[in-house]
Amino acid sequence: MNGRCVITVGDLGEFGVVARIAERLPQGGTVLLGPGDDAAMVRSPDGRVVVTTDLLIEGRHFRRDWSSGYDIGRKAAAQNLSDIVAMGANPTGIVVGLGMPADATTGWLDDLADGFRDECDLVGASVVGGDTTRCDLVVIGVTALGDLGGRAPVTRSGARPGDVVAVAGRLGHAAAGLALLTEGGSGPAELVDAHRRPEPPYACGPQAAALGATSMLDVSDGLLQDLGHVATASRVGVVLLPESFTVPVPMEKAARLLGVDPLEWILSGGDDHALAATFPETVRLPPEWTVVGHVVSGEGVQVRGRSMTRGGWDHFRQ
Amino acid sequence: MNGRCVITVGDLGEFGVVARIAERLPQGGTVLLGPGDDAAMVRSPDGRVVVTTDLLIEGRHFRRDWSSGYDIGRKAAAQNLSDIVAMGANPTGIVVGLGMPADATTGWLDDLADGFRDECDLVGASVVGGDTTRCDLVVIGVTALGDLGGRAPVTRSGARPGDVVAVAGRLGHAAAGLALLTEGGSGPAELVDAHRRPEPPYACGPQAAALGATSMLDVSDGLLQDLGHVATASRVGVVLLPESFTVPVPMEKAARLLGVDPLEWILSGGDDHALAATFPETVRLPPEWTVVGHVVSGEGVQVRGRSMTRGGWDHFRQ
Repeated sequence: MNGRCVITVGDLGEFGVVARIAERLPQGGTVLLGPGDDAAMVRSPDGRVVVTTDLLIEGRHFRRDWSSGYDIGRKAAAQNLSDIVAMGANPTGIVVGLGMPADATTGWLDDLADGFRDECDLVGASVVGGDTTRCDLVVIGVTALGDLGGRAPVTRSGARPGDVVAVAGRLGHAAAGLALLTEGGSGPAELVDAHRRPEPPYACGPQAAALGATSMLDVSDGLLQDLGHVATASRVGVVLLPESFTVPVPMEKAARLLGVDPLEWILSGGDDHALAATFPETVRLPPEWTVVGHVVSGEGVQVRGRSMTRGGWDHFRQ
Repeated sequence: MNGRCVITVGDLGEFGVVARIAERLPQGGTVLLGPGDDAAMVRSPDGRVVVTTDLLIEGRHFRRDWSSGYDIGRKAAAQNLSDIVAMGANPTGIVVGLGMPADATTGWLDDLADGFRDECDLVGASVVGGDTTRCDLVVIGVTALGDLGGRAPVTRSGARPGDVVAVAGRLGHAAAGLALLTEGGSGPAELVDAHRRPEPPYACGPQAAALGATSMLDVSDGLLQDLGHVATASRVGVVLLPESFTVPVPMEKAARLLGVDPLEWILSGGDDHALAATFPETVRLPPEWTVVGHVVSGEGVQVRGRSMTRGGWDHFRQ
């Protein structure tokens, strides 16, 4: 017993953990059956359900000394919800598989659950179920569901020569933040917090679908690599115009401090979960979208006449 | 370079791993968009989608020296598909988050993918997407989706006094197999294989729903504990009749060898993924179902007049 009594998940036991998490998670209008049974049930009025999953491993995707439980919950939810909106769909629900050490505190667990709740709340989704187990390191498996409301899904394969390439959301912020943390820095907050908690431009996904986007994806491995996926899937080339990116002042300063070209972060950094999409050139884009290039016949991604073949994050090689 | 060239997932890289897995996974009729985009898309003709998730951790839920990659894939799929049928739904698709060491071989990976494929094939579902990442130990997060075909979901909360309690599928086999492996045994195959690869009675889930089951669940924590969940959710008591269980000869022998009461395995062993359900006593049950007790007013689970409060597996305490 400590003077300041700390309750761990080991004290609660598996069913105590589940009950504690469940009571922090309100169930929204998309939910027909929430946590507590063998499975949950979510509305899918479209007759089709969009589904995506991600696995986050402590030490690889987050560090508990760099990110709070709340940040980790927000980030784990965000990267999956972002994949749903990148299809043009509206997120409806997520389920979470959570492995954690028995000495994780209930305070940390509450924060994590609150992070999931608040991120889902941004898009009208709910955490509808999950599974918890003991594990020496924190492991989080998230699956998100979404509904297209009758729209066609926006895949990676529909880009056509003549389309413009546009992005919505931040680029390079999370990469700059991670670089700063790795070097022992603790700011500027705008960058460091961007690593801890992405801010995907959720509304821009269904918006792009409604505007007639020909292809779209969530930028999670870096813009160059992700647009490379669009080029491959659509059998086209992409020309990126680096002068179309503005480097924010804090990023410019951080880059100078670390001796890095900030364009490297912008073009190759993942984890901001911006959206990249292609549109017919006749589409009038709202201000959330910035045109950064165009689609050509050919293959791959070119910047200043050079073919870019690297620039993303490969989880088995790095 | 070895004389016998072994290729690892580290050699393939993340996208190589994904491509290699995807080509082993046929996409069935429920799939509208398979692996390769930000998200997949599955039919949900009912307008509601049933969803469940489980996280499996190496050393806790399986051991690579006891189970092949194929066994692990079968088991990871089975325990999720079983949760879907336990709601009375038909499984449609699963997504898999896979963490593994860079030195995992492509042969092991192929076996794992084949295990997922073959288990899904039993119920007409497909592996529609996933995520892979490096992790020092193998971590598998599985989420399964299902469709109710217009039926009401069968939850844990509908049992009524007077109902019969019935089970379909095996009980205690996986627990006996695990006990044998733990003691250094390698047989009998019927029990050891049951630990490696459950055989859930998939068809019995939708069948029970159609027969009017008032409650149902998948037995994953042991029959006593899982029926305890039904009792709590339904605000009833359950009386179990131990004489209704038959102990198979190999289990009888194994129990004698290890000095264990085989009824302990049958009542408290998880991981066989039998189904337990309650039915109005007027329902004529098909031979797949064995009546093992009845529902009474009151609370908890009683066996031979004694209230049973333990008997399951708590992942944070054991």
